[in-house]
Amino acid sequence: MADDIKKIALLTGGGDCPGLNAVIRAVTKSAILNYGYEVIGYKFGYKGLYNNDFVPLNLSSVSGLISRGGTILYSSNKDNLFDYQVEENGKIIKKDVSDVAIENLKKENVDVLVVIGGDGTLTSARDFSRKGVKVIGVPKTIDNDLGSTDITFGFNTAIDIATEALDRLHTTAESHHRIMILEVMGRNAGFIALESGIAGSADVILLPEIPYDINKIIEKIEERKKEGKLFTIIVVAEGAKSKNGDVMVAKIVADSPDPIRLGGIGNKLAEDLEKMVNGREVRCTVLGHLQRGGITCTFDRILSTRYGVAAVELINNRNFGSMICLKGNKITYDSLENVIGNNKKVDPNGELVTIAKKIGISFAD
Amino acid sequence: MADDIKKIALLTGGGDCPGLNAVIRAVTKSAILNYGYEVIGYKFGYKGLYNNDFVPLNLSSVSGLISRGGTILYSSNKDNLFDYQVEENGKIIKKDVSDVAIENLKKENVDVLVVIGGDGTLTSARDFSRKGVKVIGVPKTIDNDLGSTDITFGFNTAIDIATEALDRLHTTAESHHRIMILEVMGRNAGFIALESGIAGSADVILLPEIPYDINKIIEKIEERKKEGKLFTIIVVAEGAKSKNGDVMVAKIVADSPDPIRLGGIGNKLAEDLEKMVNGREVRCTVLGHLQRGGITCTFDRILSTRYGVAAVELINNRNFGSMICLKGNKITYDSLENVIGNNKKVDPNGELVTIAKKIGISFAD
Amino acid sequence: MADDIKKIALLTGGGDCPGLNAVIRAVTKSAILNYGYEVIGYKFGYKGLYNNDFVPLNLSSVSGLISRGGTILYSSNKDNLFDYQVEENGKIIKKDVSDVAIENLKKENVDVLVVIGGDGTLTSARDFSRKGVKVIGVPKTIDNDLGSTDITFGFNTAIDIATEALDRLHTTAESHHRIMILEVMGRNAGFIALESGIAGSADVILLPEIPYDINKIIEKIEERKKEGKLFTIIVVAEGAKSKNGDVMVAKIVADSPDPIRLGGIGNKLAEDLEKMVNGREVRCTVLGHLQRGGITCTFDRILSTRYGVAAVELINNRNFGSMICLKGNKITYDSLENVIGNNKKVDPNGELVTIAKKIGISFAD
Amino acid sequence: MADDIKKIALLTGGGDCPGLNAVIRAVTKSAILNYGYEVIGYKFGYKGLYNNDFVPLNLSSVSGLISRGGTILYSSNKDNLFDYQVEENGKIIKKDVSDVAIENLKKENVDVLVVIGGDGTLTSARDFSRKGVKVIGVPKTIDNDLGSTDITFGFNTAIDIATEALDRLHTTAESHHRIMILEVMGRNAGFIALESGIAGSADVILLPEIPYDINKIIEKIEERKKEGKLFTIIVVAEGAKSKNGDVMVAKIVADSPDPIRLGGIGNKLAEDLEKMVNGREVRCTVLGHLQRGGITCTFDRILSTRYGVAAVELINNRNFGSMICLKGNKITYDSLENVIGNNKKVDPNGELVTIAKKIGISFAD
Repeated sequence: MADDIKKIALLTGGGDCPGLNAVIRAVTKSAILNYGYEVIGYKFGYKGLYNNDFVPLNLSSVSGLISRGGTILYSSNKDNLFDYQVEENGKIIKKDVSDVAIENLKKENVDVLVVIGGDGTLTSARDFSRKGVKVIGVPKTIDNDLGSTDITFGFNTAIDIATEALDRLHTTAESHHRIMILEVMGRNAGFIALESGIAGSADVILLPEIPYDINKIIEKIEERKKEGKLFTIIVVAEGAKSKNGDVMVAKIVADSPDPIRLGGIGNKLAEDLEKMVNGREVRCTVLGHLQRGGITCTFDRILSTRYGVAAVELINNRNFGSMICLKGNKITYDSLENVIGNNKKVDPNGELVTIAKKIGISFAD
Repeated sequence: MADDIKKIALLTGGGDCPGLNAVIRAVTKSAILNYGYEVIGYKFGYKGLYNNDFVPLNLSSVSGLISRGGTILYSSNKDNLFDYQVEENGKIIKKDVSDVAIENLKKENVDVLVVIGGDGTLTSARDFSRKGVKVIGVPKTIDNDLGSTDITFGFNTAIDIATEALDRLHTTAESHHRIMILEVMGRNAGFIALESGIAGSADVILLPEIPYDINKIIEKIEERKKEGKLFTIIVVAEGAKSKNGDVMVAKIVADSPDPIRLGGIGNKLAEDLEKMVNGREVRCTVLGHLQRGGITCTFDRILSTRYGVAAVELINNRNFGSMICLKGNKITYDSLENVIGNNKKVDPNGELVTIAKKIGISFAD
Repeated sequence: MADDIKKIALLTGGGDCPGLNAVIRAVTKSAILNYGYEVIGYKFGYKGLYNNDFVPLNLSSVSGLISRGGTILYSSNKDNLFDYQVEENGKIIKKDVSDVAIENLKKENVDVLVVIGGDGTLTSARDFSRKGVKVIGVPKTIDNDLGSTDITFGFNTAIDIATEALDRLHTTAESHHRIMILEVMGRNAGFIALESGIAGSADVILLPEIPYDINKIIEKIEERKKEGKLFTIIVVAEGAKSKNGDVMVAKIVADSPDPIRLGGIGNKLAEDLEKMVNGREVRCTVLGHLQRGGITCTFDRILSTRYGVAAVELINNRNFGSMICLKGNKITYDSLENVIGNNKKVDPNGELVTIAKKIGISFAD
Repeated sequence: MADDIKKIALLTGGGDCPGLNAVIRAVTKSAILNYGYEVIGYKFGYKGLYNNDFVPLNLSSVSGLISRGGTILYSSNKDNLFDYQVEENGKIIKKDVSDVAIENLKKENVDVLVVIGGDGTLTSARDFSRKGVKVIGVPKTIDNDLGSTDITFGFNTAIDIATEALDRLHTTAESHHRIMILEVMGRNAGFIALESGIAGSADVILLPEIPYDINKIIEKIEERKKEGKLFTIIVVAEGAKSKNGDVMVAKIVADSPDPIRLGGIGNKLAEDLEKMVNGREVRCTVLGHLQRGGITCTFDRILSTRYGVAAVELINNRNFGSMICLKGNKITYDSLENVIGNNKKVDPNGELVTIAKKIGISFAD
């Protein structure tokens, strides 16, 4: 083709997520083995693009990465180059430094930029695309709430970990006749709570999409007591909220996509419930960072590999400005313009919520 | 409705599979909680139906089953009641005893029979349906080769286990510069080998659907040596065959769907390869029964629950003679008449084989 | 022998712990198979003894228990019968009701009481022994701080889980160049933090036994930065305290051995450190109840089985008033009189702390 | 001291084993951080010593190794330099080339050689010590049969894996009422079979140290049937033998410590038993290489770290010609002269066999 492509660059942005390294590996292997592209990786997301801080990637540097959590390219928060914090004349200001990044890409003869990230990272990708950079997006979010794609990598590893945590809490709950709460990720969407709740045999699932009534939780606890089950397992998404407007999201540290979480919804709920259950014990565990680390699960290894290889095909087909998607079982793609601003939510009337209700799980609604 | 349904019966047939208990749990819970059906479970598959050997199932008897492998209803081979081995006048003969089963269903006032099983078990289900029994099928096969449905439960647990095995073999292979072979299930279809091979970073994948040339395996080993990689990982489906017609399927014990496996394809290949690699060591591990046991994985817990609840919906909608399916992300159903005889195979030109090749995995074809 | 023993009773007290069920299984099996004792189990610890609430235990009821976490006999807090909360004349008072328990034992013809529990539970066991009850103690504590025995069951499962958590935190810490803190159990003794810290490759370990200086933590972080390692992993026992007297133990709910934990030492430390590390992120995960649940590890299954069988041997040898112990590799026993009040602590100059220091782990002392 | 030590070398020999990398890491870290020794590692065991093929080891090269299976220094069989296969004048002969190794150590100014290996590797270490080389041994054997030390690293990882395999086989055995056999490592000593058999709730354990009578296995199967348990789990060490002299050890490939295993004892036993159990199915799984790979367990990470640090202390104390040991809970050492030829075996009258029998496990003796 006329617009000959010789060199591509990768970067990873936002919170780390199992599968990032598997995508890096698949893009690098596929780009080199099939098209002979040179590959580099910018470090710390867009920050590296701004500082022109990169490493070459080759078959040897991506060897063994398929199962490894995290990202060998590191990640960064606060790296929006269109509104970037810089020091000028001794003052900290925010300004658009995207042209610096574009200059760096030119200087290094990078033809295409492959951006692996979530909502924020991909918004910048779209903005670079609008400024003429050849960009390919790969969706990443543990919460599974990105638009246009059915599943994102990392999500299945997270629900595996949350489900195993629920298995563990069961033995303690049963032995002590306790109400045990597990708080999982999901500030805006409750997919992790919903799927791990079903798989981990929770009795109550609380989601951001279905405001809960604490009295309905008590009802469920009492109903179980009548059946001779003296314990109750509750899984709560961190963004769950009560019907009467009580929101107990974690204390937010400004500008951080991953704030210190103190006294979030789970602990608040434990305190509130304990007052209502007449001497029974209520305990909360906040799963937190354990959800995103460690070994990438089988499903995510395969999905990440499919995404990575498909991203290189998009390059080869010159489908720039687009993002890889999974629709049903098929890998396809969508325009970055369509993806941004179309986040998914759990459908309160969808199949999964319905089957959960049919087997007796309460959403306290 | 006119044809009032009050009682349903469950049975599980064929080799055990993670998720069977989760389906039993979901059918029972959903049937009782939503429609007030009475539920019983026949033991040892159709054998129990013939002997009228059953247990009542209620909320308490299915409690805690979502994660437990195997089947609390037990399973059986050699239980085709349309060609059943019985003793008559001191002689062992085979005859059609399906009417005995139908009599038993009438005697117990069973309105609907829910059959959870693979190809053989569902063929009988179709045959009972043809004779007027109200039957619902739920697909079960670890190999994932049943027609009409995209994924069957048990499959994801199996590839998790096979992938973990490949992770383990890597450390030994690297330390000793060995060629390590893992033989996994898949007599007719190579889905387990294909997906675990991609996730477990195999270098060579051998499938029933893609006859292999042993010289191409040697080529891959040599190619890796040149890149400084002195070990090679091969995953082989038990039904893989070579281009020149060599078939080394396991020794088959008559009438058993799960024969003693001695000197199968993996060990044969290890012996053959060792002669060709000039003093290097080749070792084979046969994963065998480890693939089907233990704790059911998150994905299969959810899928089994969806299948179980959907089976009860089919009953409620009087869609008899049909089998639950998964198409893309959607639960749907198909006629048992369509399912039987339409087994799936890995598409040698499909997406997964293609992406595997693009990241350098050899199929020795 | 003259004092013929025909019937024994078991109870489990205090917080649940992996291995309790394995001990119940081993005692029951060994008692029935070797000596023909009848076995019963009191429910909810001493509470069941007071209420004469028990279940018979036989080979069938303990089948499958070796790997199962929790206790099928349930457990209880606030069950000290020597100072027990009862309602008399409409008032809640505390009184010694131990004679009620002794009457119940007589009524049921229980010859020996086997008590599985920690410090509190075993103190009552000693007190019952002083009053003439034939008692055998089996030591239980996740924290491993009981006197007279080298290792208690549950401890190895807990360090397995904590080590896996540290493995997971590593990938996030590396990707984001963060300081990650894991808070583990250990209010009075830091064995879990010490062993999981060594196994999980922590950079800093904070124990109750070695007061820390927060400036020394900063020093370690800076030292690692100089070596090019931009992340630091800290494991902190919940009872760790700073040199200047700051104690940030969890908020204690009165009378509970397992209080709601809000804003414990880990979160406090995260807040304090974040102020001192100039813009770098510090995050804490509180492992909490995840440490005590789920599947019992291999080591604890074997240790619990040894304890259970040995407890029955103590009965057969009429060594009442004693507790099973592990000394080195040998199962032995000690008088309950010696055990109580002799809790263990990590030796700040012992082998494990010394080897940790020799491989560069800081205790911030 | 007079005999100033500045440089040490490491090598790993024999079959790979979880914990090797953790020892390499601990020796390297402790040597550099505490004594400033320079450290190198010979590759492929003694083969590297003969070929003077080594890599420098430093803090960075051992980072992240504590959990990683295998050995970054690679290992080798057939590397006995005192009887080494070389080509001379076109003929393959065996000769003593140990002087070449000693020359290489001198050339590289290596003061002390740390040898991590099993019986064979340590025999050479002793022989080098006799020729004046300053040697420290670190014991390695998955089978746990090395003399002088209570536990070797790798053993606990192996029994974890074997126990998990037994857990998995239980679900299939129960569902199909089968007799399931698991063949585990242990050619001369049955420690893995014994401990995993207890932890994995096996019904029959067959060891090299306790010749079995196949009729006693049948007796156990029948006894279980009478109790209503229609399945039986058997764990067999690869070196187990029957009372009447039948030995079915795996086919041995000459000179290999890790031969191809075809039709070993497990499969032989399956065939023999199936003929005796009247139509019931008997199936065998050979665990094989899965026992030695993957992630090192918590216990082995700590033990390996203790061994590694202690080895450096032996160097600092000039205790050459000795091997690190664990006695009870204490790290100590013994002379290599005492270690060799004193392999351990399971004591048929020891505590573990006794407790196994007391809970009803049969050794078929």
